[in-house]
Amino acid sequence: MKKLSMLMLVGVAAYMLVGLAPAVMAEEETASISIELFTVNNTWMLVATFLVFIMHLGFATLESGLTRSKNTVNILFKNIAIISIGLLTYALCGFNLMYPGEFNGYFGFAGFGIATDAAGITSAYNEGYTYWTDFLFQAMFAATAATIVSGAVAERIKLHSFLIFATLYVGLVYPIAGSWKWGGGFLDQKGFYDFAGSTLVHSVGGWAALIGAIMLGPRMGKYVNGAIKPIMGHNMPLATIGVFLLWLGWFGFNGGSVLSADAGAVSFVLVTTCLAAAAGVIGAMLTSWGIQKKPDLSMALNGALAGLVGITAGADVVSISGSVIIGLVAGFLVVISVIGLDKIKIDDPVGAISVHLTCGVWGTLAVGIFSPEHTVATQALGVICYGIFCLAAATTLFGLLKFMIGIRVSEEEEVLGLDISEHGQEAYSGFQIWTTQ
Amino acid sequence: MKKLSMLMLVGVAAYMLVGLAPAVMAEEETASISIELFTVNNTWMLVATFLVFIMHLGFATLESGLTRSKNTVNILFKNIAIISIGLLTYALCGFNLMYPGEFNGYFGFAGFGIATDAAGITSAYNEGYTYWTDFLFQAMFAATAATIVSGAVAERIKLHSFLIFATLYVGLVYPIAGSWKWGGGFLDQKGFYDFAGSTLVHSVGGWAALIGAIMLGPRMGKYVNGAIKPIMGHNMPLATIGVFLLWLGWFGFNGGSVLSADAGAVSFVLVTTCLAAAAGVIGAMLTSWGIQKKPDLSMALNGALAGLVGITAGADVVSISGSVIIGLVAGFLVVISVIGLDKIKIDDPVGAISVHLTCGVWGTLAVGIFSPEHTVATQALGVICYGIFCLAAATTLFGLLKFMIGIRVSEEEEVLGLDISEHGQEAYSGFQIWTTQ
Amino acid sequence: MKKLSMLMLVGVAAYMLVGLAPAVMAEEETASISIELFTVNNTWMLVATFLVFIMHLGFATLESGLTRSKNTVNILFKNIAIISIGLLTYALCGFNLMYPGEFNGYFGFAGFGIATDAAGITSAYNEGYTYWTDFLFQAMFAATAATIVSGAVAERIKLHSFLIFATLYVGLVYPIAGSWKWGGGFLDQKGFYDFAGSTLVHSVGGWAALIGAIMLGPRMGKYVNGAIKPIMGHNMPLATIGVFLLWLGWFGFNGGSVLSADAGAVSFVLVTTCLAAAAGVIGAMLTSWGIQKKPDLSMALNGALAGLVGITAGADVVSISGSVIIGLVAGFLVVISVIGLDKIKIDDPVGAISVHLTCGVWGTLAVGIFSPEHTVATQALGVICYGIFCLAAATTLFGLLKFMIGIRVSEEEEVLGLDISEHGQEAYSGFQIWTTQ
Repeated sequence: MKKLSMLMLVGVAAYMLVGLAPAVMAEEETASISIELFTVNNTWMLVATFLVFIMHLGFATLESGLTRSKNTVNILFKNIAIISIGLLTYALCGFNLMYPGEFNGYFGFAGFGIATDAAGITSAYNEGYTYWTDFLFQAMFAATAATIVSGAVAERIKLHSFLIFATLYVGLVYPIAGSWKWGGGFLDQKGFYDFAGSTLVHSVGGWAALIGAIMLGPRMGKYVNGAIKPIMGHNMPLATIGVFLLWLGWFGFNGGSVLSADAGAVSFVLVTTCLAAAAGVIGAMLTSWGIQKKPDLSMALNGALAGLVGITAGADVVSISGSVIIGLVAGFLVVISVIGLDKIKIDDPVGAISVHLTCGVWGTLAVGIFSPEHTVATQALGVICYGIFCLAAATTLFGLLKFMIGIRVSEEEEVLGLDISEHGQEAYSGFQIWTTQ
Repeated sequence: MKKLSMLMLVGVAAYMLVGLAPAVMAEEETASISIELFTVNNTWMLVATFLVFIMHLGFATLESGLTRSKNTVNILFKNIAIISIGLLTYALCGFNLMYPGEFNGYFGFAGFGIATDAAGITSAYNEGYTYWTDFLFQAMFAATAATIVSGAVAERIKLHSFLIFATLYVGLVYPIAGSWKWGGGFLDQKGFYDFAGSTLVHSVGGWAALIGAIMLGPRMGKYVNGAIKPIMGHNMPLATIGVFLLWLGWFGFNGGSVLSADAGAVSFVLVTTCLAAAAGVIGAMLTSWGIQKKPDLSMALNGALAGLVGITAGADVVSISGSVIIGLVAGFLVVISVIGLDKIKIDDPVGAISVHLTCGVWGTLAVGIFSPEHTVATQALGVICYGIFCLAAATTLFGLLKFMIGIRVSEEEEVLGLDISEHGQEAYSGFQIWTTQ
Repeated sequence: MKKLSMLMLVGVAAYMLVGLAPAVMAEEETASISIELFTVNNTWMLVATFLVFIMHLGFATLESGLTRSKNTVNILFKNIAIISIGLLTYALCGFNLMYPGEFNGYFGFAGFGIATDAAGITSAYNEGYTYWTDFLFQAMFAATAATIVSGAVAERIKLHSFLIFATLYVGLVYPIAGSWKWGGGFLDQKGFYDFAGSTLVHSVGGWAALIGAIMLGPRMGKYVNGAIKPIMGHNMPLATIGVFLLWLGWFGFNGGSVLSADAGAVSFVLVTTCLAAAAGVIGAMLTSWGIQKKPDLSMALNGALAGLVGITAGADVVSISGSVIIGLVAGFLVVISVIGLDKIKIDDPVGAISVHLTCGVWGTLAVGIFSPEHTVATQALGVICYGIFCLAAATTLFGLLKFMIGIRVSEEEEVLGLDISEHGQEAYSGFQIWTTQ
């Protein structure tokens, strides 16, 4: 804890210093569009920002709903911490790592802090929105990547290890990886396409989730004598609230990625997004109903997310029927992936790897299939480049943390639950809960 | 289950085919307004769409909060399924049934699927929004009608029977009925007025809710030896979240029904909407406080919804004081209706019939009272036409389902709860819950 | 109860009368801006209104989550009642007390009711939005002030006493106090600055919360033989939902206070708002982690709110680094204040006094520190004027209520819980809950 506090204080202090002497100045170019259009574009981007913000509540509720009540405080704490750390680190360095301006295509940095001068406030950053809107929208995205990891490592990771990991992953790994495509880097120049982040956000989070789940090992009691013992989530209404909020948030995630309020583009993207989500539910529902002979709520919920992750890479370039097929296949894949990971004993309490990595890869490749302007080969190149970098980065970070301070709580703490052992606080004070939970 | 899967697959397959050869092309007319105004109108309609979307979470939480914990997974499953089925069927046929263009005023169909061509994306569909926005906003509305039914038949209906009913009601009944007014059909030509759907949405759902509740019969233990035994909802915070989200969603439901961002019209509608909701709370609170001698939370919550349903038909044409009176009366009516239905042993677990049908009829007639341009007679004509059609349609659908596959679960399943019997899953794993619940 | 009903009916009746003959007419001035800009400004202000509305759900869930399950129905009831009473009383008199037009700077009143004439609907009220939008945005703010009090007096106040207090505080005290600055009154002329209400909303609610908590005394069992016995909240996911929704709502609270959709101003305000919230979390987390040696979720959550309240007075006039420092200090102060109030035995179940009063004062003074155009002295003058007035008003109101009908429930009722004793209804029917809760 001491170490963590130190690390944070150093970060905060660094921020203070550079914040006072902002390194980046918004360019004072005149907007080539009317003030009216600029204002509506900016307003739309802010609304999209709010929607992406609320995804963090969606992740918090989904993740806590699908896990046990004895680890709920811990999960909620992680989620309020991640959005806060994410916003501050993105202001400190992430934004300028991800959008460095002219650079070599692999790594660039425009300096610490964000601008506070009058130019940054009043002048037009681009045709769509102000410099501040740009920062805030991107910052909300950035924090998402770490939140994805949170679900896969839930119920057994040490809190401070996770917070250090999240800080570095959001502050350094995500923006550097992001610069390769959205910052105009080498993958952008190679024609790789990822509209709103099936790969840049979801698989970047998903790869780290995979490594985290493997390095931590499964929760106690999950795989016993070769049998898979399901550990049920403790609050399905909470999980359902999470999925609806994430779906809502995706209107901003994908709709905002148009980067303007362009009526045709935004509304088209939202139709493909919605139909893919709906098809994802149907796909997962039918698949799990067929396999398990029961209509499974968790699978239906994850089906919606699967469809949403799947459509994210190509929401603007596929056809209506393409979006439905992408969603259906994503719904099928998420169920197969959840079952498959369990078979090879990779324990992912909320299905984050299946939703964000499996369907993130599918969605990225699907652009090559359903959009005539892109090829599967180029898309696969992007998937592979991000996979290698994220696997290396996540393995290094988790490995160092494991070596230095450990990443898994003790058996006693895991049995007791992280709420009591890490926080000394119960999530449902007064309720009678079976001790095994 | 097999039958259901088949039915769905056929639907999905049909969609795939027609989706690939879209039948409807957006007209390539030039917008007569500035690109700026078109963009802000479209942005507003999208925001309204998001708000109507979140109503589905509102319904899911309200309905599960007001019922027993042993049926919670079932209710959540129905709600995530309905929005998904609703969106897909509306894309397949609903949209083109409801807005068929020129037709005989009673039934018209513009073909399967929705357009995906460049014209649909870029050209101006009308002065308010694009073709895609139009579809998405209307699709969110459509799914609402089936969700209303869900509450009244909760805790005892067979899942697959309900899903088939919902699919047909959203895909066929709702859009055909809708075409009579909003599609320019015979009731529109007769001067019937329903701004945002007190009748077209709420009573259409409400009539089916009534038929469903009657044909299923009351839940076991609700009416014993002539006495009414209240069955309490299991989670009042969840129900309260539901009502606040529905109120929020109504800003889009009514505000979006202006069909543009017109500042005066939208803001006026939102003021009448809000004051009616507030007055509904006060009306229901005072009525139930007077009758039951206790301030009843469920009644106060339903009062808000009553006021909202009541103002929906005339939000744009009544005065401020008119909106307050409409809300107060709606709040009074919902309490009386809930008590009255219980007296004649129609068991509606969440009060859906009282909120959506009773107050939907009241709100529609109130337009004739509080708006000088409309008459109670014309409004009553509309109420009656929709009543006859919906009663016939709902009776036919539920009757066929009852005859063919049954609509009510067995006594054992009802006692056990639908979560375990239909889904094999508990909503609150680990919590100790009294067995009678 | 009878008295309450009478009081409300009188209010409603009064409203009916004046509503029918609206006293205020919106001025028919021609807008000096384009219809496009006016429309986007108005749309933005409506979105901000929705966001402030959803803060009421945030308060409801935060407050019920941080208290015991036996008082949950009572808290939810208060919250749905307050927003309803708040909207109606603000329409009846609040709006015209707060914005009286030309007045003596201390007290003015523009008459009962709000306008319903065509001018009010169609003409431009000002460059930012219509008369209706103005009313609705301000009405949502007004109701907030009473909700703040609700948390501090929870679990022991008589329902009808609280409702009468809230009605008078929202309908009279808040708008008169508000007129001094936002209505163009004497503090506005003295140069006092409060952008979005650190003082005008949060400390106005906070002072009443302080007086309420003192006059009621602590909950039974909180302070026993000189020891502080923590009474844990019963539902931490609910509390977390509350904080995220409040953060979301603050985008409208602060962003809407720009009073137009001006791209630079709104986006700048949202960046300072978000960074202050994030810094508040970090500040509270480090402070409580340092003092209590455990990462405390309640403190982290209150840290977000502390940062948000802190930045509210100066969100538009401080620098980026200033906003981070304001948030960090607010996060530190909220923890110290919670601990300090407990030491002097002022029992505030949810920390409302610490969040809204302590950080409201801090945020107001911070404008004098971090904005070169304002002085600490002028800011302190405003803090003192509001403090004296609100302390006097709250003491008078609570004193009269205590004298006339009592403000605290009986010991038996408090032990039993307000849900059963006041409402005859449980929040979690069926769940087994320890009797001490």
